[in-house]
Amino acid sequence: MTEKDSYFMQKAIDLAQKGADSNSGGPFGAVIVMDNKIIAEGYNRVTSTNDPTAHAEIVAIKKACEKLNSFQLDDCVIYTSCEPCPMCLGAIYWARPKKVYYACNRNDAAVIDFDDQFIYTEIQKKLDQRKIEFQNIMRQEGLKLFKAWKNNPNTVKY
Amino acid sequence: MTEKDSYFMQKAIDLAQKGADSNSGGPFGAVIVMDNKIIAEGYNRVTSTNDPTAHAEIVAIKKACEKLNSFQLDDCVIYTSCEPCPMCLGAIYWARPKKVYYACNRNDAAVIDFDDQFIYTEIQKKLDQRKIEFQNIMRQEGLKLFKAWKNNPNTVKY
Repeated sequence: MTEKDSYFMQKAIDLAQKGADSNSGGPFGAVIVMDNKIIAEGYNRVTSTNDPTAHAEIVAIKKACEKLNSFQLDDCVIYTSCEPCPMCLGAIYWARPKKVYYACNRNDAAVIDFDDQFIYTEIQKKLDQRKIEFQNIMRQEGLKLFKAWKNNPNTVKY
Repeated sequence: MTEKDSYFMQKAIDLAQKGADSNSGGPFGAVIVMDNKIIAEGYNRVTSTNDPTAHAEIVAIKKACEKLNSFQLDDCVIYTSCEPCPMCLGAIYWARPKKVYYACNRNDAAVIDFDDQFIYTEIQKKLDQRKIEFQNIMRQEGLKLFKAWKNNPNTVKY
Protein backbone atom coordinates (compact mmCIF):
# COMPACT_ATOMS: atom_id res chain seq x y z
CA MET A 1 0.00 0.00 0.00
CA THR A 2 1.44 3.35 -1.03
CA GLU A 3 0.82 6.70 0.64
CA LYS A 4 -1.48 7.57 -2.24
CA ASP A 5 -3.52 4.41 -1.70
CA SER A 6 -3.88 5.31 1.94
CA TYR A 7 -4.93 8.87 1.04
CA PHE A 8 -7.59 7.73 -1.43
CA MET A 9 -8.96 5.04 0.88
CA GLN A 10 -9.21 7.54 3.71
CA LYS A 11 -11.27 9.73 1.35
CA ALA A 12 -13.60 6.79 0.71
CA ILE A 13 -13.94 6.18 4.46
CA ASP A 14 -14.55 9.90 5.07
CA LEU A 15 -17.33 9.82 2.47
CA ALA A 16 -18.86 6.80 4.19
CA GLN A 17 -18.77 8.76 7.45
CA LYS A 18 -20.35 11.78 5.78
CA GLY A 19 -23.17 9.66 4.34
CA ALA A 20 -23.78 7.95 7.67
CA ASP A 21 -23.73 11.24 9.62
CA SER A 22 -26.29 12.79 7.29
CA ASN A 23 -28.51 9.68 7.36
CA SER A 24 -28.16 9.43 3.61
CA GLY A 25 -27.94 5.65 3.70
CA GLY A 26 -25.60 2.93 4.93
CA PRO A 27 -21.99 3.68 6.00
CA PHE A 28 -20.31 3.13 2.65
CA GLY A 29 -18.16 5.43 0.51
CA ALA A 30 -16.11 5.16 -2.68
CA VAL A 31 -13.81 7.25 -4.87
CA ILE A 32 -12.66 6.66 -8.43
CA VAL A 33 -9.13 7.69 -9.34
CA MET A 34 -7.56 8.31 -12.73
CA ASP A 35 -3.99 9.57 -13.20
CA ASN A 36 -3.68 9.92 -9.42
CA LYS A 37 -6.65 12.27 -9.21
CA ILE A 38 -10.13 11.65 -7.83
CA ILE A 39 -12.57 12.00 -10.73
CA ALA A 40 -15.72 10.84 -8.91
CA GLU A 41 -17.01 10.26 -5.40
CA GLY A 42 -20.02 8.47 -3.98
CA TYR A 43 -21.65 7.44 -0.76
CA ASN A 44 -24.67 5.26 -0.09
CA ARG A 45 -27.97 7.09 -0.65
CA VAL A 46 -30.43 4.17 -0.60
CA THR A 47 -32.77 5.27 2.18
CA SER A 48 -32.65 9.02 1.52
CA THR A 49 -33.41 8.74 -2.21
CA ASN A 50 -35.53 5.55 -2.17
CA ASP A 51 -33.15 3.95 -4.63
CA PRO A 52 -31.96 0.43 -3.74
CA THR A 53 -29.24 0.73 -6.40
CA ALA A 54 -27.69 3.92 -4.93
CA HIS A 55 -24.70 2.18 -3.36
CA ALA A 56 -21.46 4.17 -3.05
CA GLU A 57 -19.74 2.34 -5.91
CA ILE A 58 -22.71 2.65 -8.29
CA VAL A 59 -23.07 6.37 -7.54
CA ALA A 60 -19.34 6.91 -8.15
CA ILE A 61 -19.23 4.75 -11.31
CA LYS A 62 -22.15 6.65 -12.87
CA LYS A 63 -20.47 9.99 -12.09
CA ALA A 64 -17.08 8.89 -13.43
CA CYS A 65 -18.64 7.59 -16.66
CA GLU A 66 -20.57 10.82 -17.07
CA LYS A 67 -17.35 12.80 -16.62
CA LEU A 68 -15.40 10.68 -19.09
CA ASN A 69 -18.26 10.37 -21.59
CA SER A 70 -17.66 6.64 -21.59
CA PHE A 71 -19.32 3.52 -20.24
CA GLN A 72 -15.88 2.05 -19.56
CA LEU A 73 -13.38 2.98 -16.83
CA ASP A 74 -10.30 1.13 -18.15
CA ASP A 75 -7.67 3.45 -16.71
CA CYS A 76 -9.37 3.96 -13.37
CA VAL A 77 -8.88 2.55 -9.87
CA ILE A 78 -11.77 2.26 -7.38
CA TYR A 79 -11.26 2.72 -3.64
CA THR A 80 -14.26 1.56 -1.63
CA SER A 81 -14.71 1.48 2.14
CA CYS A 82 -16.21 -2.03 1.92
CA GLU A 83 -15.88 -5.02 -0.41
CA PRO A 84 -18.47 -4.47 -3.16
CA CYS A 85 -21.77 -6.34 -2.88
CA PRO A 86 -22.72 -8.55 -5.87
CA MET A 87 -24.66 -5.68 -7.49
CA CYS A 88 -21.66 -3.36 -7.27
CA LEU A 89 -19.24 -6.11 -8.25
CA GLY A 90 -21.35 -6.67 -11.35
CA ALA A 91 -21.30 -2.94 -12.10
CA ILE A 92 -17.52 -2.94 -11.65
CA TYR A 93 -17.13 -5.78 -14.15
CA TRP A 94 -19.30 -3.96 -16.67
CA ALA A 95 -17.27 -0.74 -16.17
CA ARG A 96 -13.94 -2.63 -16.21
CA PRO A 97 -11.61 -0.51 -14.02
CA LYS A 98 -8.05 -1.80 -13.69
CA LYS A 99 -8.06 -2.38 -9.92
CA VAL A 100 -10.23 -2.21 -6.80
CA TYR A 101 -9.06 -1.49 -3.25
CA TYR A 102 -11.47 -2.25 -0.39
CA ALA A 103 -11.30 -1.85 3.41
CA CYS A 104 -14.03 -3.83 5.25
CA ASN A 105 -15.19 -7.15 3.80
CA ARG A 106 -18.56 -8.84 3.21
CA ASN A 107 -18.49 -10.51 6.62
CA ASP A 108 -17.89 -7.18 8.34
CA ALA A 109 -20.94 -5.88 6.45
CA ALA A 110 -23.02 -8.84 7.68
CA VAL A 111 -22.09 -7.98 11.29
CA ILE A 112 -23.77 -4.59 10.85
CA ASP A 113 -26.79 -6.29 9.23
CA PHE A 114 -26.20 -5.76 5.52
CA ASP A 115 -27.14 -8.62 3.19
CA ASP A 116 -23.96 -8.79 1.08
CA GLN A 117 -22.93 -12.30 2.15
CA PHE A 118 -26.51 -13.56 1.88
CA ILE A 119 -26.74 -12.31 -1.70
CA TYR A 120 -23.34 -13.84 -2.56
CA THR A 121 -24.72 -17.18 -1.36
CA GLU A 122 -27.98 -16.79 -3.28
CA ILE A 123 -26.20 -15.91 -6.54
CA GLN A 124 -24.40 -19.23 -6.51
CA LYS A 125 -27.62 -21.21 -6.16
CA LYS A 126 -29.56 -22.67 -9.04
CA LEU A 127 -32.45 -20.42 -10.05
CA ASP A 128 -35.08 -22.83 -8.69
CA GLN A 129 -33.44 -22.95 -5.26
CA ARG A 130 -33.35 -19.24 -4.51
CA LYS A 131 -35.26 -17.33 -1.85
CA ILE A 132 -36.76 -15.15 -4.58
CA GLU A 133 -38.60 -17.33 -7.11
CA PHE A 134 -37.29 -17.25 -10.69
CA GLN A 135 -39.39 -18.73 -13.50
CA ASN A 136 -38.42 -19.16 -17.13
CA ILE A 137 -41.12 -18.42 -19.72
CA MET A 138 -41.19 -17.53 -23.44
CA ARG A 139 -37.52 -18.20 -24.13
CA GLN A 140 -38.19 -18.78 -27.86
CA GLU A 141 -39.80 -15.35 -28.21
CA GLY A 142 -36.79 -13.78 -26.46
CA LEU A 143 -34.33 -15.66 -28.65
CA LYS A 144 -35.83 -14.23 -31.83
CA LEU A 145 -34.80 -10.80 -30.64
CA PHE A 146 -31.28 -11.93 -29.72
CA LYS A 147 -30.79 -13.49 -33.16
CA ALA A 148 -31.97 -10.33 -34.90
CA TRP A 149 -29.53 -8.29 -32.74
CA LYS A 150 -26.59 -10.55 -33.56
CA ASN A 151 -27.32 -10.42 -37.28
CA ASN A 152 -27.85 -6.65 -37.41
CA PRO A 153 -24.63 -4.89 -38.49
CA ASN A 154 -25.94 -1.50 -37.32
CA THR A 155 -26.23 -2.19 -33.58
CA VAL A 156 -23.61 -0.74 -31.20
CA LYS A 157 -21.95 -3.86 -29.73
CA TYR A 158 -20.20 -3.68 -26.34
CA MET B 1 -47.72 -19.44 -17.21
CA THR B 2 -50.97 -17.46 -17.23
CA GLU B 3 -52.24 -15.19 -19.99
CA LYS B 4 -51.21 -12.23 -17.86
CA ASP B 5 -47.67 -13.56 -17.52
CA SER B 6 -47.48 -13.91 -21.27
CA TYR B 7 -48.83 -10.38 -21.74
CA PHE B 8 -46.30 -8.82 -19.36
CA MET B 9 -43.36 -10.78 -20.77
CA GLN B 10 -44.32 -9.75 -24.28
CA LYS B 11 -44.21 -6.14 -23.06
CA ALA B 12 -40.67 -6.72 -21.73
CA ILE B 13 -39.63 -8.25 -25.06
CA ASP B 14 -41.24 -5.37 -26.97
CA LEU B 15 -39.26 -2.90 -24.82
CA ALA B 16 -36.07 -4.81 -25.59
CA GLN B 17 -36.91 -4.53 -29.28
CA LYS B 18 -37.60 -0.82 -28.92
CA GLY B 19 -34.26 -0.25 -27.19
CA ALA B 20 -32.39 -2.28 -29.80
CA ASP B 21 -34.14 -0.57 -32.72
CA SER B 22 -33.25 2.87 -31.37
CA ASN B 23 -29.63 1.84 -30.62
CA SER B 24 -30.21 2.75 -27.00
CA GLY B 25 -28.14 -0.20 -25.79
CA GLY B 26 -28.30 -3.99 -25.73
CA PRO B 27 -31.53 -5.90 -26.59
CA PHE B 28 -32.93 -6.16 -23.07
CA GLY B 29 -36.25 -4.99 -21.60
CA ALA B 30 -38.10 -5.30 -18.30
CA VAL B 31 -41.42 -4.36 -16.72
CA ILE B 32 -42.41 -4.27 -13.06
CA VAL B 33 -45.95 -5.26 -12.15
CA MET B 34 -47.96 -4.57 -9.00
CA ASP B 35 -51.63 -5.56 -8.59
CA ASN B 36 -51.65 -6.77 -12.20
CA LYS B 37 -50.61 -3.37 -13.54
CA ILE B 38 -47.29 -2.26 -15.02
CA ILE B 39 -45.86 0.40 -12.72
CA ALA B 40 -42.45 0.79 -14.37
CA GLU B 41 -40.67 -0.10 -17.60
CA GLY B 42 -37.05 -0.13 -18.66
CA TYR B 43 -34.76 -1.03 -21.50
CA ASN B 44 -30.99 -1.10 -21.73
CA ARG B 45 -29.48 2.36 -22.21
CA VAL B 46 -25.79 1.63 -21.55
CA THR B 47 -24.23 2.86 -24.79
CA SER B 48 -26.59 5.77 -25.43
CA THR B 49 -26.25 7.28 -21.93
CA ASN B 50 -22.67 6.15 -21.13
CA ASP B 51 -23.94 4.42 -18.02
CA PRO B 52 -22.74 0.84 -17.52
CA THR B 53 -25.41 0.37 -14.82
CA ALA B 54 -28.33 1.32 -17.11
CA HIS B 55 -29.54 -2.24 -17.65
CA ALA B 56 -33.26 -2.77 -18.24
CA GLU B 57 -33.90 -4.15 -14.74
CA ILE B 58 -31.98 -1.38 -12.96
CA VAL B 59 -33.78 1.32 -14.97
CA ALA B 60 -37.16 -0.26 -14.16
CA ILE B 61 -36.35 -0.84 -10.47
CA LYS B 62 -35.30 2.78 -10.00
CA LYS B 63 -38.51 4.01 -11.67
CA ALA B 64 -40.73 1.67 -9.65
CA CYS B 65 -39.10 2.73 -6.38
CA GLU B 66 -39.49 6.38 -7.30
CA LYS B 67 -43.17 5.80 -8.03
CA LEU B 68 -43.79 3.93 -4.77
CA ASN B 69 -41.57 6.22 -2.67
CA SER B 70 -39.89 3.13 -1.32
CA PHE B 71 -36.57 1.33 -1.72
CA GLN B 72 -38.40 -2.00 -1.47
CA LEU B 73 -40.64 -3.69 -4.04
CA ASP B 74 -42.18 -6.40 -1.83
CA ASP B 75 -45.49 -6.72 -3.66
CA CYS B 76 -44.04 -6.50 -7.14
CA VAL B 77 -43.20 -9.00 -9.88
CA ILE B 78 -40.45 -8.38 -12.43
CA TYR B 79 -40.68 -9.62 -16.03
CA THR B 80 -37.37 -9.40 -17.86
CA SER B 81 -36.53 -10.47 -21.41
CA CYS B 82 -33.30 -12.11 -20.17
CA GLU B 83 -32.07 -13.72 -16.94
CA PRO B 84 -30.63 -10.86 -14.84
CA CYS B 85 -26.86 -10.40 -14.86
CA PRO B 86 -25.13 -10.46 -11.43
CA MET B 87 -25.45 -6.67 -11.11
CA CYS B 88 -29.19 -6.76 -11.76
CA LEU B 89 -29.63 -9.88 -9.64
CA GLY B 90 -27.98 -8.01 -6.78
CA ALA B 91 -30.28 -5.03 -7.35
CA ILE B 92 -33.27 -7.40 -7.34
CA TYR B 93 -32.20 -8.87 -4.00
CA TRP B 94 -31.82 -5.39 -2.50
CA ALA B 95 -35.27 -4.37 -3.84
CA ARG B 96 -36.83 -7.71 -2.79
CA PRO B 97 -39.70 -8.24 -5.28
CA LYS B 98 -41.76 -11.39 -4.74
CA LYS B 99 -41.00 -13.09 -8.06
CA VAL B 100 -38.99 -12.76 -11.28
CA TYR B 101 -39.94 -14.12 -14.72
CA TYR B 102 -37.25 -14.26 -17.40
CA ALA B 103 -37.18 -15.35 -21.07
CA CYS B 104 -33.62 -15.83 -22.42
CA ASN B 105 -30.92 -17.12 -20.07
CA ARG B 106 -27.29 -16.18 -19.33
CA ASN B 107 -25.97 -18.63 -21.94
CA ASP B 108 -28.21 -17.12 -24.59
CA ALA B 109 -26.73 -13.72 -23.63
CA ALA B 110 -23.20 -15.10 -24.01
CA VAL B 111 -24.04 -16.25 -27.55
CA ILE B 112 -24.71 -12.62 -28.50
CA ASP B 113 -21.48 -11.56 -26.74
CA PHE B 114 -22.70 -10.24 -23.39
CA ASP B 115 -20.54 -11.00 -20.34
CA ASP B 116 -23.23 -12.28 -17.94
CA GLN B 117 -21.87 -15.83 -17.66
CA PHE B 118 -18.28 -14.57 -17.37
CA ILE B 119 -19.24 -12.28 -14.48
CA TYR B 120 -21.18 -15.10 -12.77
CA THR B 121 -18.00 -17.18 -12.91
CA GLU B 122 -15.81 -14.33 -11.63
CA ILE B 123 -18.13 -13.62 -8.67
CA GLN B 124 -17.63 -17.13 -7.38
CA LYS B 125 -13.84 -16.82 -7.41
CA LYS B 126 -11.75 -15.78 -4.44
CA LEU B 127 -10.88 -12.10 -4.59
CA ASP B 128 -7.21 -12.78 -5.34
CA GLN B 129 -8.04 -15.00 -8.32
CA ARG B 130 -10.20 -12.59 -10.27
CA LYS B 131 -9.50 -10.98 -13.63
CA ILE B 132 -9.87 -7.54 -11.99
CA GLU B 133 -7.41 -7.23 -9.09
CA PHE B 134 -8.90 -6.72 -5.62
CA GLN B 135 -6.67 -5.62 -2.74
CA ASN B 136 -7.62 -5.27 0.91
CA ILE B 137 -6.19 -2.26 2.76
CA MET B 138 -7.08 -0.29 5.92
CA ARG B 139 -9.71 -2.71 7.22
CA GLN B 140 -9.26 -1.48 10.80
CA GLU B 141 -10.02 2.11 9.80
CA GLY B 142 -13.13 0.92 7.97
CA LEU B 143 -14.27 -1.16 10.93
CA LYS B 144 -14.27 1.85 13.26
CA LEU B 145 -16.97 3.37 11.08
CA PHE B 146 -19.03 0.17 11.02
CA LYS B 147 -18.91 -0.11 14.81
CA ALA B 148 -20.01 3.50 15.23
CA TRP B 149 -22.89 2.86 12.80
CA LYS B 150 -24.05 -0.25 14.66
CA ASN B 151 -23.96 1.54 18.01
CA ASN B 152 -25.73 4.68 16.80
CA PRO B 153 -29.47 4.45 17.56
CA ASN B 154 -30.26 7.33 15.16
CA THR B 155 -29.21 5.72 11.87
CA VAL B 156 -31.88 4.44 9.47
CA LYS B 157 -31.22 0.69 9.34
CA TYR B 158 -32.35 -1.34 6.33
